[in-house]
Amino acid sequence: MFYIVGLGLGGPKDITVRGLEIIKGCQRVYLEAYTSILSCGTEALEEFYGRKLIVADRDLVEQGADDILEGSLNTDIALLVVGDPFGATTHTDLILRAREKGIKFQVIHNASILNAVGCCGLQLYSFGETVSIPYWTDEWQPDSFFDKIVNNYCNKLHTLCLLDIKVKEPTLESLTRKKKEFMPPKFMTVNEASKQLLEIVSRRTKAGEKPSITGESLCVGLARVGSETQQIVACSMRCMSNYDLGGPLQSLIIVGPMIHPLEIEYLEQFRLKQ
Amino acid sequence: MFYIVGLGLGGPKDITVRGLEIIKGCQRVYLEAYTSILSCGTEALEEFYGRKLIVADRDLVEQGADDILEGSLNTDIALLVVGDPFGATTHTDLILRAREKGIKFQVIHNASILNAVGCCGLQLYSFGETVSIPYWTDEWQPDSFFDKIVNNYCNKLHTLCLLDIKVKEPTLESLTRKKKEFMPPKFMTVNEASKQLLEIVSRRTKAGEKPSITGESLCVGLARVGSETQQIVACSMRCMSNYDLGGPLQSLIIVGPMIHPLEIEYLEQFRLKQ
Repeated sequence: MFYIVGLGLGGPKDITVRGLEIIKGCQRVYLEAYTSILSCGTEALEEFYGRKLIVADRDLVEQGADDILEGSLNTDIALLVVGDPFGATTHTDLILRAREKGIKFQVIHNASILNAVGCCGLQLYSFGETVSIPYWTDEWQPDSFFDKIVNNYCNKLHTLCLLDIKVKEPTLESLTRKKKEFMPPKFMTVNEASKQLLEIVSRRTKAGEKPSITGESLCVGLARVGSETQQIVACSMRCMSNYDLGGPLQSLIIVGPMIHPLEIEYLEQFRLKQ
Repeated sequence: MFYIVGLGLGGPKDITVRGLEIIKGCQRVYLEAYTSILSCGTEALEEFYGRKLIVADRDLVEQGADDILEGSLNTDIALLVVGDPFGATTHTDLILRAREKGIKFQVIHNASILNAVGCCGLQLYSFGETVSIPYWTDEWQPDSFFDKIVNNYCNKLHTLCLLDIKVKEPTLESLTRKKKEFMPPKFMTVNEASKQLLEIVSRRTKAGEKPSITGESLCVGLARVGSETQQIVACSMRCMSNYDLGGPLQSLIIVGPMIHPLEIEYLEQFRLKQ
């Protein structure tokens, strides 16, 4: 059997009882470590589960599917994934590969940022399409996510923005060499994301548009949701672009134009005092 | 401390390890039983947790907040909730009450239908606003959720439809009496939901509209997601209106007009053979 087990968002104990039983009974256990991370680190997981984990980077999960699935026709193999197993397309792909090979699979669900974001008090049913904000480079500065945020806003909906993470990215110089060298991992913060959004607002304003999202738009910044060091702050996008929420992972919400009285009351506790 | 603990979607073992530790250490443990249910039933939970649960109906959670919170300044009290704690507004309200009273609280996240719905292979980032489909009565037949589905569709997004559940609803006749009598619990099925949607399509077509959602629209029906008896089926809305997915809880997805090749490949395994 091939298992994909969601780990949830906080520490080692956020795994489900069922997930823990599976881990203990598996021949090999992989930990997917490039679409998301747990702030507690791999060692804490290994200690709590009482076994070694094989850290699976992007290359292994995307190109080494056969290696991961090896032996799962007759024994049990698990891939652990931060959040819920269906948060990333690659995991769906891996299940399809398993099916092709006639390998049975089971998915163990868990909390992901897509539902845990409700911890800020904004109602999950008032969110529109989720967007991803990628790191800009000098040459590549896409802004299509901005149109989606505006579209949600016009539909009176909040937008959850997932922020880019770069783990085990090869350096440009090493791409031509045999031995790849990697950049230090980096995780986009709410202030970096807000700065990119403000830049888009500024460009569009200069181009004669009047974007419904501006520096004054109400935002909510979330860091390390579900962990003991979770932080939430609500302020304008301009303020957010200077606010430090500490370490990864962080997410940003652009609040819609209609806020329910209960949402306002709940958000108030996170409002930045100025 | 006041804890709200998410139970996830399947059986007793879908609770997180952290959640289980909390239950074992609490003075009183309530089980919220009217916004959602676990197919395994209360007894299975009590047996696995090794303790009695106080079943909290709508009246207790909405009007008896003081009773639930009683004593949580000095001892530990927990409210268990199917799925994730922020799935229903009432739980947010309860946390606000706790804050007012100076009671500390902690939330233990878990999987909810909002992220577990990814199990059908449709990408979570391609879903628009979630809608709720309520039971119609002879006098009350709202259809505003239809406009939201159409809006998502026009934005090339899928729509998750949460289906109504009626638990401990007083009978009309008993409302005027001192002692309330209750209707048997009922849970909307994907075929009931599809029939209501088809009725709306038919009414609008008669009124001269050309709705972009029709009887031919591709739908996905899901039943008991996360449990051992989970079922998923993909077919047209017209087919779905005659398809029986068995017991509760069920959800319906109206698939958007753009389906990613990986989504198509994954959905294919659930396609109804005709």
